Amino acid sequence: MVVVVKKDASEEQIRDILKHLEDYGFKTHVSVGEMRTIIGAIGVQPDFDIRKVKILEGVADVYRITDPFKLASRNFKKEDTVVNIKDCKIGGDNIVLIAGPCSIESEEQIFRLAEIVHSSGAKILRGGAFKPRSSPYSFQGLGEEGLKMIRKAADEFGLLVITEVLQIGQIDLISKYADILQVGARNMQNFSLLKELGQSDIPVMLKRGLSATIEEWLMSAEYLLSSNNKNVFLCERGIRTFETYTRNTFDLSAIPVVHEKSHLPVIADPSHATGLRNQVPPMARAAIAAGADGLMIEIHDDPEKALSDGPQALLPNQYLDLIKELKLIAKAIGRNL
Amino acid sequence: MVVVVKKDASEEQIRDILKHLEDYGFKTHVSVGEMRTIIGAIGVQPDFDIRKVKILEGVADVYRITDPFKLASRNFKKEDTVVNIKDCKIGGDNIVLIAGPCSIESEEQIFRLAEIVHSSGAKILRGGAFKPRSSPYSFQGLGEEGLKMIRKAADEFGLLVITEVLQIGQIDLISKYADILQVGARNMQNFSLLKELGQSDIPVMLKRGLSATIEEWLMSAEYLLSSNNKNVFLCERGIRTFETYTRNTFDLSAIPVVHEKSHLPVIADPSHATGLRNQVPPMARAAIAAGADGLMIEIHDDPEKALSDGPQALLPNQYLDLIKELKLIAKAIGRNL
Amino acid sequence: MVVVVKKDASEEQIRDILKHLEDYGFKTHVSVGEMRTIIGAIGVQPDFDIRKVKILEGVADVYRITDPFKLASRNFKKEDTVVNIKDCKIGGDNIVLIAGPCSIESEEQIFRLAEIVHSSGAKILRGGAFKPRSSPYSFQGLGEEGLKMIRKAADEFGLLVITEVLQIGQIDLISKYADILQVGARNMQNFSLLKELGQSDIPVMLKRGLSATIEEWLMSAEYLLSSNNKNVFLCERGIRTFETYTRNTFDLSAIPVVHEKSHLPVIADPSHATGLRNQVPPMARAAIAAGADGLMIEIHDDPEKALSDGPQALLPNQYLDLIKELKLIAKAIGRNL
Amino acid sequence: MVVVVKKDASEEQIRDILKHLEDYGFKTHVSVGEMRTIIGAIGVQPDFDIRKVKILEGVADVYRITDPFKLASRNFKKEDTVVNIKDCKIGGDNIVLIAGPCSIESEEQIFRLAEIVHSSGAKILRGGAFKPRSSPYSFQGLGEEGLKMIRKAADEFGLLVITEVLQIGQIDLISKYADILQVGARNMQNFSLLKELGQSDIPVMLKRGLSATIEEWLMSAEYLLSSNNKNVFLCERGIRTFETYTRNTFDLSAIPVVHEKSHLPVIADPSHATGLRNQVPPMARAAIAAGADGLMIEIHDDPEKALSDGPQALLPNQYLDLIKELKLIAKAIGRNL
Repeated sequence: MVVVVKKDASEEQIRDILKHLEDYGFKTHVSVGEMRTIIGAIGVQPDFDIRKVKILEGVADVYRITDPFKLASRNFKKEDTVVNIKDCKIGGDNIVLIAGPCSIESEEQIFRLAEIVHSSGAKILRGGAFKPRSSPYSFQGLGEEGLKMIRKAADEFGLLVITEVLQIGQIDLISKYADILQVGARNMQNFSLLKELGQSDIPVMLKRGLSATIEEWLMSAEYLLSSNNKNVFLCERGIRTFETYTRNTFDLSAIPVVHEKSHLPVIADPSHATGLRNQVPPMARAAIAAGADGLMIEIHDDPEKALSDGPQALLPNQYLDLIKELKLIAKAIGRNL
Repeated sequence: MVVVVKKDASEEQIRDILKHLEDYGFKTHVSVGEMRTIIGAIGVQPDFDIRKVKILEGVADVYRITDPFKLASRNFKKEDTVVNIKDCKIGGDNIVLIAGPCSIESEEQIFRLAEIVHSSGAKILRGGAFKPRSSPYSFQGLGEEGLKMIRKAADEFGLLVITEVLQIGQIDLISKYADILQVGARNMQNFSLLKELGQSDIPVMLKRGLSATIEEWLMSAEYLLSSNNKNVFLCERGIRTFETYTRNTFDLSAIPVVHEKSHLPVIADPSHATGLRNQVPPMARAAIAAGADGLMIEIHDDPEKALSDGPQALLPNQYLDLIKELKLIAKAIGRNL
Repeated sequence: MVVVVKKDASEEQIRDILKHLEDYGFKTHVSVGEMRTIIGAIGVQPDFDIRKVKILEGVADVYRITDPFKLASRNFKKEDTVVNIKDCKIGGDNIVLIAGPCSIESEEQIFRLAEIVHSSGAKILRGGAFKPRSSPYSFQGLGEEGLKMIRKAADEFGLLVITEVLQIGQIDLISKYADILQVGARNMQNFSLLKELGQSDIPVMLKRGLSATIEEWLMSAEYLLSSNNKNVFLCERGIRTFETYTRNTFDLSAIPVVHEKSHLPVIADPSHATGLRNQVPPMARAAIAAGADGLMIEIHDDPEKALSDGPQALLPNQYLDLIKELKLIAKAIGRNL
Repeated sequence: MVVVVKKDASEEQIRDILKHLEDYGFKTHVSVGEMRTIIGAIGVQPDFDIRKVKILEGVADVYRITDPFKLASRNFKKEDTVVNIKDCKIGGDNIVLIAGPCSIESEEQIFRLAEIVHSSGAKILRGGAFKPRSSPYSFQGLGEEGLKMIRKAADEFGLLVITEVLQIGQIDLISKYADILQVGARNMQNFSLLKELGQSDIPVMLKRGLSATIEEWLMSAEYLLSSNNKNVFLCERGIRTFETYTRNTFDLSAIPVVHEKSHLPVIADPSHATGLRNQVPPMARAAIAAGADGLMIEIHDDPEKALSDGPQALLPNQYLDLIKELKLIAKAIGRNL
């Protein structure tokens, strides 16, 4: 932490600042400049609230000089994390494909779509059984029945299953059926849920909150990692801005930033980011070109009757055409899909 | 819902749009203009996803013409909701004061602060026992021990207790000690928690999410109301914007908007909105002047040693001085504090 | 400037960083900690682009420790600036009232409204003659004819005139008729215009840009001050956020922040911030309670026929009622209106 | 325009709304539903302020159903606009490359960089002579001397010149030397400048404002088009959000939206969007993959000594390597670069 002292601070104020820093457990180091005196406060306290120093008399400003996350940071672990689930690798040089419907609606539906997912070369089948809907009057998912259906379909086609968990009470149940648990955008800072998920070693995909900074997102990953679950990867899904023509603003610049700040894999979800089918292909292509470690794409073969998010689902043939383009783009940047 | 048809849509496309709307359960009404054909789709379906129509061939645009919330809306209930808790009334002409520390830290601390809260004329004592911290390394609250302390202090001084609930598993425990449960900003869209809280009739204060629109905030209130808990009030606590000199942007324009759109009381939390002690008084005054139905203010008598958010806590004398100013402002706008 | 060196930076990298800093004209001061080496770079260069150092090998992070503005800062000038225009004082303990129509529409209109402005005790009459409209098809203002009308009306009622200037070519013309020139939100970073306005000593009201940070706003004030016009005051008028129920989000927390960071007066414009008549009174009251040095309010006596922004104009009686409330609030916080 | 009437509106209120609409020049068409009465207001008035109707008694809500821009819209002109400048085509199937330094610094510098631009196959050389700097203390550009240098360098290597215009007074001067005038983000709503540029037929590249919606951006293009300059193309350069790890958030989802809403070409500027050299290549690739009609990239061969924005400039070899990747990505999506 660096403390900048006000130009007109008195000797006594500076002594008082130093005393406080030492009481808070820091070693101090004073640099007197012509214009400004700067105090270096040395000692790692990742959770220290710098406002405690900011409000002291004589303090002009305070800068935290270390990131507040540790286990999630590239400083802590130089090599890319690769999450291994059976023969599927997420992270490193690999690009992983996740596809499937927004919600599991029936056994027939999930079987038909699993077949398409399999035929595209994707390894992971998605489908929601417990849905976080902004309206209490909307379809809330099939629950355990849905989980049984997606497991059966995935097994038939040799796929892994990812599905969303909404609350602590569902973790055990969902873990019986799924290979990866998704923490949705609205739960990114549901710290109770994160701590509980951190206790197991089931792989977790952590979506970025709608208005979460990249730092907060990595702090939420830190909750998982510090509770000892190392099988964590991230998913960018669009942030909230002032723009109203698009549902969200897909923040692809987050991809290279996460890769610089952290060792965790980061995939992208163009379906939720855009919310409309015809915008999914260009944004899926852009995500791969930007260096994403994978994609999660929603598909449906009868989107008009879909119980949730039909308008953003690609039709099977659109999806298969897109995959072909994505392979070429991956190749252009020296990666494999 | 109003569907605007593209200028060059064919007869067949229009027939197909009408067919879809009828299949979705709407009655339709076509107005042919010189420039545009407009279809009115009549029938209330608060959870209908308008994107389903937006993607049909020949559709230029679609407008939902009713708010997606019902029980929370001023249309549904014209009179202001007043939440009655013992002799304390929240809403209507009253302005309610809630004060106390960010976290309960010890029995001595909460007793000292409860005395100040009582002496200010406030009716409700706040204090966190379970804390949602963005860092896993930060103080997470005293848990049930803390709850016992705040209850005892409140009883000593004739105050009500409000404290935050983070997960379903805590509801029963906290309800034994508290009079009002707070749903924090990060849990505003924790729909599982909202549904569960809706099952009881314990009063709930629902804070606005950091980047929640007013509509989403009222939709979350709708979760509580539609699960049958009518004792609900709202709390504005600042939203996230691009500005970095302030922690959040205190959205006081939300106050008159909520009063227009909804019958629910809305109070304001200038402590979290600003994050710094010296900005709390001007923003507290502004909130009352803007018509807030109450304030929640953090105080501490030794903020340098506070275990959380000390820098935003008012000192007791600052707090008592502020209350005097607030009484004058309340009077100036014809309300009582 | 403080430069944080990477944990694993080599001796050579550190030498190279020091060399660069010295080449850029800074004195350097190295503090070696257990975990981190920190370099203080001493020397004031308000326009230095810190990214130049950020991209050097071995640099973890860089913090500018002085504000980029100088003449606008409270550090540079401790006492509040008071802009004196004839017998009207803007800043200090005074609260100034500016009122009038959005656009000057006719001599009759501006005379009728000037009379109301005068009767309310306000000192300054506003009215647009050159209008910055987002549509090229909208009313663009009466130009010089309008300027003549507002000058005449103001003289009749002993008022000062404020009106907006859109381009360099209008400065001389408008200065003949107006006492204060307004730089609108969209021109806050029209640096050519600011430099030109800085050459004269005509008072300038600088509105905050729609998505300008407070720092950028003060930097734009710095353009005026550094070109040697000291008669500058600021106006907060709402910022852009994700919220759609309100036209803008009125950022009242900017008021105390500006007062802390700068000596310049800052007034508030609740009419543009909210965009709807019924939200103007609560937000006007809130602005005064938050410590604004004045208000600019739009009024109209036939808003349905107004050529611009009629929906946000207060009716004369609403305006006069509001002023009464504002006087009480000003008094409650020890100020005079 | 569609006007939704309040559920409890009286007959008289509805009559009054109809009267107002007719006075405003609309034909009206009433649909009475069970729950709601809807009034269609027919007649195109692109600049009509819908708040005028919103504030009438009995009105629940009002929706504009046509875009406020006309000449810029895809409805008005179905085919892609292609701006032809000598043998260079912007728009259609082509992908155009613009490259060069942020500022023109010397004849040697711009010649060296022009050679690299030419060798990459790019057709257009960029370089600023008049710089809009947020600090009055920063380098403001070489002015006309700079213009002479860039023209000479471009002619030597058979390139076109693009450079920024900041004010009306510079248009004639810059037009003598440049082939394309750039309107920067901060001037996107400098309507005086746009109107003046609309009077000529010199090609204009209109950058998106930092917090401009896509609609506002197209409205600014409408200013140019309606003043009769048809040689217009757009440039996305990042928008302002809450994220602080990146300078701006590059809004690539704007690319497909602009292509849907408008016929104008839209290119992307990853250099300003990210602000840091190592983030430029992934974002440049993403922009092409998203369907951008071109790129503008900043390069420098001695970025440490650059007078502006050196940290975001690619080195020549980085730039040339990137172009190779971009060619492959363009090919992958069936376009040519």
